Amino acid sequence: MKKTIQFILNKPQLSENVGMSLRSIGCFGFENLSLVSPRKIWPNDKGIKSAKHFSSLVKKVKVYQSIPEAMKGSDILIATTVRKRDFHIPPIKVNEISKLKSKKISILFGQENNGLSNKEISHANFLLSIPTYNKSSLNLSHTVAFCLLYTSDAADEGLGVDLGG
Amino acid sequence: MKKTIQFILNKPQLSENVGMSLRSIGCFGFENLSLVSPRKIWPNDKGIKSAKHFSSLVKKVKVYQSIPEAMKGSDILIATTVRKRDFHIPPIKVNEISKLKSKKISILFGQENNGLSNKEISHANFLLSIPTYNKSSLNLSHTVAFCLLYTSDAADEGLGVDLGG
Repeated sequence: MKKTIQFILNKPQLSENVGMSLRSIGCFGFENLSLVSPRKIWPNDKGIKSAKHFSSLVKKVKVYQSIPEAMKGSDILIATTVRKRDFHIPPIKVNEISKLKSKKISILFGQENNGLSNKEISHANFLLSIPTYNKSSLNLSHTVAFCLLYTSDAADEGLGVDLGG
Repeated sequence: MKKTIQFILNKPQLSENVGMSLRSIGCFGFENLSLVSPRKIWPNDKGIKSAKHFSSLVKKVKVYQSIPEAMKGSDILIATTVRKRDFHIPPIKVNEISKLKSKKISILFGQENNGLSNKEISHANFLLSIPTYNKSSLNLSHTVAFCLLYTSDAADEGLGVDLGG
């Protein structure tokens, strides 16, 4: 089921972050990256360069105009945020994602400078925060990477499993 | 104890990776980053820009000429590698680091293009691999970030703790 998780970057500003996210997606055996209204047209040279040995995934990236379009077909949308929100949307921890029964999970990440707006976040079934010191915001691709590591087969196996062959 | 972990980047090539590592170090309440023979003189503009809201840590970064110099004062050196090695150095999992009794732990990361040489790795007490699909290599700053997340207070508390205040 895990390989089907869709990672959605909303309005990403830096193509390097898109590329580094894609590299990590490949590193953990996932492949579904979607972009909603990226600032730069995708694909582009900076993004491809940052994807490194996973440039094969570059053409699989889907580009949408809106979050509802991108999340179509998903049963569950998890929105990431570092700020506290007033919504009555239940929280989820990063190590709980892999316990969800749904087969069609999307995880939504906000743009680098100010994350997701309240309207954007209102589409979500769960809110996810990576607990940082003083709620400091992480680099976008690092947040994506944490979600990947915790939903990968490696995490289930206590991080000791050999995923490769 | 955790705040005293030293993160050592050996011969880092890209200042963006140094800066992004520093940002993550700040995000998890750590502060000790050391560089061994960085390709670009530190500090520099690209590195500072990538450190974002943790530019205050930029001047705390120590620069050394060799790994033995950088690891002086450490009881335990953990070397990160994605490749299998022939050494008789015991492995350690990323979620086991925080269980080590030592108060003076350093974690060593190799350069972006080909990691640590056998000679460089021979200084280590433990070898650490982040288990990736087909042993694909991660971005340097992502590997640093995983070590940070797993040694942070948040990981101990099941990732639910509020670190800030």
